[in-house]
Amino acid sequence: MEAQRITTDVAIIGAGPVGLFTVFQAGMLGMKTTVIDVLPEIGGQCQALYPQKPIYDIPAHPMVTGEELIENLRKQAEPFAPEYVLGGMVEQLTKDNNAWQMVTSLGVTVEAKVVIIAAGCGAFGPNKPPLVGIERHEGNQVFYMVKDRQSFKDKMLVIAGGGDSAVDWANSLAELAKKIYVVHRRDKFRAAPDSVRKMQELAAQGKVELVIPYQLEAIQEDASRRMTGVMVKTLEGEERILPADALLAFFGLSMNLGPISDWGLNLSKNHIAVDPATMATSASGIYAIGDIATYTGKLKLILCGFSEAAIACHNAYNQVFPGKALHFEYSTTRGVPGEK
Amino acid sequence: MEAQRITTDVAIIGAGPVGLFTVFQAGMLGMKTTVIDVLPEIGGQCQALYPQKPIYDIPAHPMVTGEELIENLRKQAEPFAPEYVLGGMVEQLTKDNNAWQMVTSLGVTVEAKVVIIAAGCGAFGPNKPPLVGIERHEGNQVFYMVKDRQSFKDKMLVIAGGGDSAVDWANSLAELAKKIYVVHRRDKFRAAPDSVRKMQELAAQGKVELVIPYQLEAIQEDASRRMTGVMVKTLEGEERILPADALLAFFGLSMNLGPISDWGLNLSKNHIAVDPATMATSASGIYAIGDIATYTGKLKLILCGFSEAAIACHNAYNQVFPGKALHFEYSTTRGVPGEK
Repeated sequence: MEAQRITTDVAIIGAGPVGLFTVFQAGMLGMKTTVIDVLPEIGGQCQALYPQKPIYDIPAHPMVTGEELIENLRKQAEPFAPEYVLGGMVEQLTKDNNAWQMVTSLGVTVEAKVVIIAAGCGAFGPNKPPLVGIERHEGNQVFYMVKDRQSFKDKMLVIAGGGDSAVDWANSLAELAKKIYVVHRRDKFRAAPDSVRKMQELAAQGKVELVIPYQLEAIQEDASRRMTGVMVKTLEGEERILPADALLAFFGLSMNLGPISDWGLNLSKNHIAVDPATMATSASGIYAIGDIATYTGKLKLILCGFSEAAIACHNAYNQVFPGKALHFEYSTTRGVPGEK
Repeated sequence: MEAQRITTDVAIIGAGPVGLFTVFQAGMLGMKTTVIDVLPEIGGQCQALYPQKPIYDIPAHPMVTGEELIENLRKQAEPFAPEYVLGGMVEQLTKDNNAWQMVTSLGVTVEAKVVIIAAGCGAFGPNKPPLVGIERHEGNQVFYMVKDRQSFKDKMLVIAGGGDSAVDWANSLAELAKKIYVVHRRDKFRAAPDSVRKMQELAAQGKVELVIPYQLEAIQEDASRRMTGVMVKTLEGEERILPADALLAFFGLSMNLGPISDWGLNLSKNHIAVDPATMATSASGIYAIGDIATYTGKLKLILCGFSEAAIACHNAYNQVFPGKALHFEYSTTRGVPGEK
């Protein structure tokens, strides 16, 4: 099967509210758009994290849910027939023949004259402990979430972390696993008191061993690089080696820029630095808007991202249509395609 | 009767869409607002000029009329109980005791810690010919619009201008008036060709006299200062005096800043210059947003004005509540007053 290849005027990375409104703004200026998102559906956080939550600060919407907001923006973008490339992350971004080439993790190639990054806070991902060689064991003996509970039956487990995930999984897996060590850097857990009480009972019964106050220090491997245990250490330097078939590390989720941070754009505190007069990044033809963009006075509000989308599109116009003057007309004058 | 006096945190000058959204944004940050507008109702141009016209570029509103937009913004502002001071223009703005004092043309005094000017393009008004003493005759013998057609019956009229208004009124009043002079500075009229043709027929019949290429030069008065005629002049200096009971000058409408231009703010081409990072003007405690504000990269879009409203309010906060830290919460976290 031949890999999919799309050519467009403007590639929009991020299908959240700001990315969707960019389709409309670009469309009003006659620019074709392709929207790429790592999530399998449009809407970004609004749709994935709080579809039912009321939002009050979208202008001229006294109250709107995340889901309704996205549906309205989808409809508004529709007359401009954007192409949606969903479910894959943009892993590469390179310049070739004066156009930008993006390749997603699903192998789709998008070529665009202009790229507008509206990727919010980047992609969600687990916080990983800084252990040498940990990536070799991920998905095999090191896990950041539990997909298959039964796979831990009769295993020696090290669970690390002090929040609900660590405590709840310790309690849940206690009946299955051969032994569970719960490693936490301090005595106090940030979990529901009831769950903590239950875990302490299991510890009293010997089904769980609380290894406190210790932090993860290193992964122990045998000659074939199989993980055999986890070395933990106190702040005073006291070490223990916990024999383990699996390490479950629950240090929360966080957003991270992912591959975006490798594209050579000027960054500022994990955000993309832009000129607020144009939303241009340090790379010609790449713009950044919405929560991922930063400049003096930046407010992380969806409504500010809408304004940034308009500014980026007006500036992208000259790169999409070099030498063509922008004859700006208000939407009331010109309408949108296909209106009745 | 004692003059009305209002004390508030933030005075918003202009009740158009951007001014109304400022009520909401200020309210979310705990600031009380008073909205002042020269028009007798809220909504600015949206309501006064195009209430039924569809607008397509309000984010998450695939289509909304001017009237619906204003109604939604009014509802969104309502939980914060703004005070509306309508029908009078802010004529004075002075600083007193660290607060700004505004006096409207209806004599209402508003005192505020912060002023946010969201006055759009200023107030609408006719372009007036620069004739000495013209204001003495306005509404009496000099008119910029026709309110009562019958009042021109059997009168000697000078109609000045070369657009549709001048031509259409010359044609319409020809059957009523004793004589009509149409004064225009050049041979070509910027009016519908049919209307121009009709006027030329009337001129051929002697009902209208085209005084071309002349410009208005002076108003002739008798001893009691009644206007008796209008002096017109060619570029070469040739003069004529046209006897006239009334002068109808149709040089188009334009927006003008009105008293705002006398408030000592830094202006740039008839707009108020602001720092886009804060929306602050050159006067401490005065912000400008929406179409009246200008900065590098400014787009005159309602949706950009919404973003500017948020930026201005976040910056005004420190002046309204000196020394109080702004604990910003998203609207999804905190909701709005009175929500169910």
